[in-house]
Amino acid sequence: MCQLLGMNCNVPTDICFSFEGFARRGGDTDEHSDGWGIAFFEGKGCRTFMDVQPSAESVVSELVRHYPIRSMNVIAHIRKASVGEVKLENTHPFVRELWGEYWVFAHNGDLFGYDPPLNGRYRAVGTTDSERAFCTILQRLSDAFDERPTMQAICNLVHEQAQRIGEEGSFNFLLSNGDILVARCSTDLYYLVRQHPFDKAQLKDLDVTVDFNQVTTPNDRVAVIATEPLTRNERWTRIEPGQCLVFRNGTVAYRYG
Amino acid sequence: MCQLLGMNCNVPTDICFSFEGFARRGGDTDEHSDGWGIAFFEGKGCRTFMDVQPSAESVVSELVRHYPIRSMNVIAHIRKASVGEVKLENTHPFVRELWGEYWVFAHNGDLFGYDPPLNGRYRAVGTTDSERAFCTILQRLSDAFDERPTMQAICNLVHEQAQRIGEEGSFNFLLSNGDILVARCSTDLYYLVRQHPFDKAQLKDLDVTVDFNQVTTPNDRVAVIATEPLTRNERWTRIEPGQCLVFRNGTVAYRYG
Repeated sequence: MCQLLGMNCNVPTDICFSFEGFARRGGDTDEHSDGWGIAFFEGKGCRTFMDVQPSAESVVSELVRHYPIRSMNVIAHIRKASVGEVKLENTHPFVRELWGEYWVFAHNGDLFGYDPPLNGRYRAVGTTDSERAFCTILQRLSDAFDERPTMQAICNLVHEQAQRIGEEGSFNFLLSNGDILVARCSTDLYYLVRQHPFDKAQLKDLDVTVDFNQVTTPNDRVAVIATEPLTRNERWTRIEPGQCLVFRNGTVAYRYG
Repeated sequence: MCQLLGMNCNVPTDICFSFEGFARRGGDTDEHSDGWGIAFFEGKGCRTFMDVQPSAESVVSELVRHYPIRSMNVIAHIRKASVGEVKLENTHPFVRELWGEYWVFAHNGDLFGYDPPLNGRYRAVGTTDSERAFCTILQRLSDAFDERPTMQAICNLVHEQAQRIGEEGSFNFLLSNGDILVARCSTDLYYLVRQHPFDKAQLKDLDVTVDFNQVTTPNDRVAVIATEPLTRNERWTRIEPGQCLVFRNGTVAYRYG
């Protein structure tokens, strides 16, 4: 299995603190050592860093842990390979373009070889069922809407597809187009929203504390979503199995299930 | 305008030496300081590093200069913005998926607002004519072939499209699917093939020399393509305006024009 980390904010924010703890789980405090990846939206642009080395050791991961990239939507993934070899093409997150926007997707779970017929608009490059599930969701969106519809129409269809694909196995995922971040829980997913008044937070995976009061303004709002809570002194809310939460501007905008 | 750097090899090879010199042109030995990017194919996978900071100063560029990623196809670009703001979404190289393969593209030149009608299969995310030209080429390939045809059929169509789009302005580009690397010249593009017996090479842009004899085997073959020659003591061949060379396994496989 794998672990997911997502961030959705109302102002560009760096994810160094959360990623520092998360990356330890890739080969140090946990066993997810078959590669990792992280995608940052910056405006309409999106850049991804990934490596097949464990995130606890990778020099690319070291860069990401210490180089503050400010983004309003981030998706990260550390991999414990189940389906698909340890290769770059099987490393999440996956990126495709739809309606002139980049879409980013990372999955935690096992869909047991899920391999639906696809019409060719989106095809998997690697051999994971995760990438095939992502292609399926984008194909359905593309088939349904020639141009980008309302955000709610997108979310309705994503949730419906998530339920359908989720019947094939476990399907926890994060999906973002740089505006919304969809967090869908099948088995394990937690979130918290940090906002005024900010406080200190202490990582679970290593002895690091940050005082968010020192690095924020009263208007900042940051939602963090993760497979397992990342901090020991904050209150994380469990997303229930079958639930799909849509984050926008650092808060829950739509809720399904 | 911008500068291009490409590498196509018969064994996975790192590009640190060439990129070290090339990156100096992004804000140090030359004026191309409006961002940069580099894409590495590793198997079917592809990872891209990019930044809107000048490549001579960027910490991401520093990582790429010193972290040897072994790849058989690399495309890099440093940008001097002409069309499109200095934003991540306008930073080359661009990546899309076609026939279950990643395709990577970088352009040097000015197409004067080229904006053809596109059917929606590929859309530009940013505002550069470069990305629109890339989308056009992929759409034509996708329209012509449901499945990947022979390499020659692909190259014929790419060359034909390159000539057509090239009528709109200057259209030097590099394009790769991880197997072939297409180098199309409109105004400036040079290449060399390094093979046995290997020799020393000395960068033009900074005082660095490498003895390839020490880091290669007799079977290695590496083609390097660049807007301007990168070394002072090697013989670079000019690609003539209108020519399109297709590199595979470190040598010219097809030649148009």
